[in-house]
Amino acid sequence: MSTLPSSQPTRLSRNLAEFLTTARLDDLPSAVQHEAKRSLLNYFATALGGCRDSAVEHALKVVSPFAGARQARIIGRKEQLDALNAAFLNAISANVFDFDDTHPGTVIHPSAPVAPALFALAETRRLGGRELLQAFALGVEVECRIGNAVSPGHYARGWHITSTCGVFGSAVAVGKCIGLTSEQMLWALGAASAQAGGLIETLGTMAKSLSVGNAARNGIVAAFAAQSGLTGPEMPLEGPRGFAHVFGTNPDFSRISAGLGEQWEAQRNTYKPYPCGIVLHSVLDACLSLRKDNELPVERIESIVVRGHPLLGQRTNRPDVTTGREAQVSAQHSVAVALLTGAAGLEQYSDAAVRDPAVLALRRKVEVRDDATMTIEAAEVSITLRDGRILKRVVEQARGGEKQPLTDADLEAKLRDLAAFGKSGCDAAALIDAVWSLDSSSDAGQVMRLASAQ
Amino acid sequence: MSTLPSSQPTRLSRNLAEFLTTARLDDLPSAVQHEAKRSLLNYFATALGGCRDSAVEHALKVVSPFAGARQARIIGRKEQLDALNAAFLNAISANVFDFDDTHPGTVIHPSAPVAPALFALAETRRLGGRELLQAFALGVEVECRIGNAVSPGHYARGWHITSTCGVFGSAVAVGKCIGLTSEQMLWALGAASAQAGGLIETLGTMAKSLSVGNAARNGIVAAFAAQSGLTGPEMPLEGPRGFAHVFGTNPDFSRISAGLGEQWEAQRNTYKPYPCGIVLHSVLDACLSLRKDNELPVERIESIVVRGHPLLGQRTNRPDVTTGREAQVSAQHSVAVALLTGAAGLEQYSDAAVRDPAVLALRRKVEVRDDATMTIEAAEVSITLRDGRILKRVVEQARGGEKQPLTDADLEAKLRDLAAFGKSGCDAAALIDAVWSLDSSSDAGQVMRLASAQ
Repeated sequence: MSTLPSSQPTRLSRNLAEFLTTARLDDLPSAVQHEAKRSLLNYFATALGGCRDSAVEHALKVVSPFAGARQARIIGRKEQLDALNAAFLNAISANVFDFDDTHPGTVIHPSAPVAPALFALAETRRLGGRELLQAFALGVEVECRIGNAVSPGHYARGWHITSTCGVFGSAVAVGKCIGLTSEQMLWALGAASAQAGGLIETLGTMAKSLSVGNAARNGIVAAFAAQSGLTGPEMPLEGPRGFAHVFGTNPDFSRISAGLGEQWEAQRNTYKPYPCGIVLHSVLDACLSLRKDNELPVERIESIVVRGHPLLGQRTNRPDVTTGREAQVSAQHSVAVALLTGAAGLEQYSDAAVRDPAVLALRRKVEVRDDATMTIEAAEVSITLRDGRILKRVVEQARGGEKQPLTDADLEAKLRDLAAFGKSGCDAAALIDAVWSLDSSSDAGQVMRLASAQ
Repeated sequence: MSTLPSSQPTRLSRNLAEFLTTARLDDLPSAVQHEAKRSLLNYFATALGGCRDSAVEHALKVVSPFAGARQARIIGRKEQLDALNAAFLNAISANVFDFDDTHPGTVIHPSAPVAPALFALAETRRLGGRELLQAFALGVEVECRIGNAVSPGHYARGWHITSTCGVFGSAVAVGKCIGLTSEQMLWALGAASAQAGGLIETLGTMAKSLSVGNAARNGIVAAFAAQSGLTGPEMPLEGPRGFAHVFGTNPDFSRISAGLGEQWEAQRNTYKPYPCGIVLHSVLDACLSLRKDNELPVERIESIVVRGHPLLGQRTNRPDVTTGREAQVSAQHSVAVALLTGAAGLEQYSDAAVRDPAVLALRRKVEVRDDATMTIEAAEVSITLRDGRILKRVVEQARGGEKQPLTDADLEAKLRDLAAFGKSGCDAAALIDAVWSLDSSSDAGQVMRLASAQ
């Protein structure tokens, strides 16, 4: 066992556990509570949109023969499963299209591992809405702070950070709700560390979803294990063979401890307006703005040039995609489908949309050009028409980023759209109301009645 | 995404999947089949010994409220759980004392993740004994070869290699039994890679057991997910963000592919005669040999010197341990208890044994001295008696290592001893017979009837 460097903290995990267990309901700033609700709106939206995806269908088929009592609901569906498997499934639905929330500093999708665990718990025991919102904010705080400590090396090496850090978020959120002592909360962090995993190599395949589902599920296991007395290490995060050193390189532990309870990572959470790679969002803003002002049938268009930072081309210059999943990182498809339909939702990134002859015809006219003088956030789209005119839009900051966050109304619209896309028949308006009024609910589990298939 | 170095294999996972799916029953050498039975004897022995440990009790308490139908038995106990949770629990029992088998090149405990998954499967569908033995050998092969490819850096960095590599063993073993195609076997490897985890920091605490249990459980999930059609990456092992590069440093891929089907890692498996750190085994051989030839009450002994390679002192010079778990890595406790009782089993490493006044008195007389001229395998024990005489034993190679393997009879005795220790009331003789005759059984799941509590 190597010795600890002298600058190494030795009470980091203990102090974190202490903070979590002593946090009072009144300690949560109202702005953070409001952001938690916004995150939950976005969570239900993307889970309702993803609830019939084939990864969800496969996962449900796999766990059903082994599942326990019908304790908890599956978003957008009629099936019920035991709470662990329900959390597993709902995390998969929420994240399957990568349309869920994004914590910009780490690219963690914070809600997918935490929210399903809490709502599954809330269906097995009475849990107040304020308690749930507080636990959610604390879970997001812990997963994002741990992610901060190991970023950017952790993701760059190949760790699917939503899964690896998400299990801590789920564990502490559930642990807070079931009233763990500080010692037990430390053990819950240890039990989470023992179960952390998930690889970038699996992105773009359905195997990704297993690690995201496990993060939600195993956090619940970690919390109950700790409560039962299953011991863990003294320094699960900072120990020489603990999470940060093993999953990270030169971790910055101050990112976990500094400003705890004062600065909230939940307030940095962002929500995507479009279900595709974030670098394409400015491109889509430009295309949708052009489309709003002009009728643009294929035959009127001579050529289209997308100009952006070289990273844009590197990641999205893909003229020949064949599936919806690939199309999510194709500039050519995104431009074509947005100009033709005036929208960029899940329908525009379906396999059917990729095969649409009009989309195929238009995407051939799209060229991506590098411009090293542009920022990574910006994009320019120029359309040359057959009649010689040129239509141009420049977007400096995409909607949905930290500087142009989606409004509450945008998030409500996203939920309505995705509920319609998922065809669950759930009453989107009632669900939206229930999320906004969560803080006055004495039984947060009731929200799941509204989120499941009717 | 970084590009692959030119020496990088690109069909490694595919070729491995192809090997696994095309392997025929007759391809398994009879010596490997026999070693598989020896591994299973040792597996049932240690699981029977561990089945009442507090980590098992806690884990059972945690999963029970969420468990499904009573599909599969728990070794040494009366409870039954769904197959996933049964595999989880039995892996924990088998490994909880680290008394299970050891693959010397990697320090993987090969059986704990693989055997419980296979026997749980065998309780849910008819599975022939030869099929089970073949699948077991293939599972051990895959986990140990993947372990070889990332050793020694992987364990040194802090990965609990039994868990991280074990999930692949479980996945391919179950995958073989359920008849995965080669494409599905590739996906099963991917689904396993998404779920791999486990940290050395948790060793010595109960949280370790969660990762070992997960390895067995999640391998089953991976195999069924692949069969259902849940896709995985093309290169889960060798890809730029795949298992070997992310969990390892400069992995040696030839250790996965070379001699596949010709050299079997299962034949390198070893079994511990004593439930303690492997570096103490030579010390215990020396003490038990001295005790066999001499009556050695505390009051006759003046002092004891243990001499060994500096690593022995570094790992085991622990005069003041207070629990059975700590005692497993204490030379002082080991020497004292072995000389006093003439044995070194789980009873000798219980909390009660650590508190025994005679053990406490004798361990104070034990001194550990470094001798850099000695090999890591060797140990010398010298006892100075009150009457001035010196009794000395030198052991060059401990029993149970690769060069002095436990005999079949030793393994049978180990199973009988541990079955008695675990107090399950199971008929050890009948269980031993059932394991030896597994290759003529048409229903391997029947073994679990004999291994559960009667």
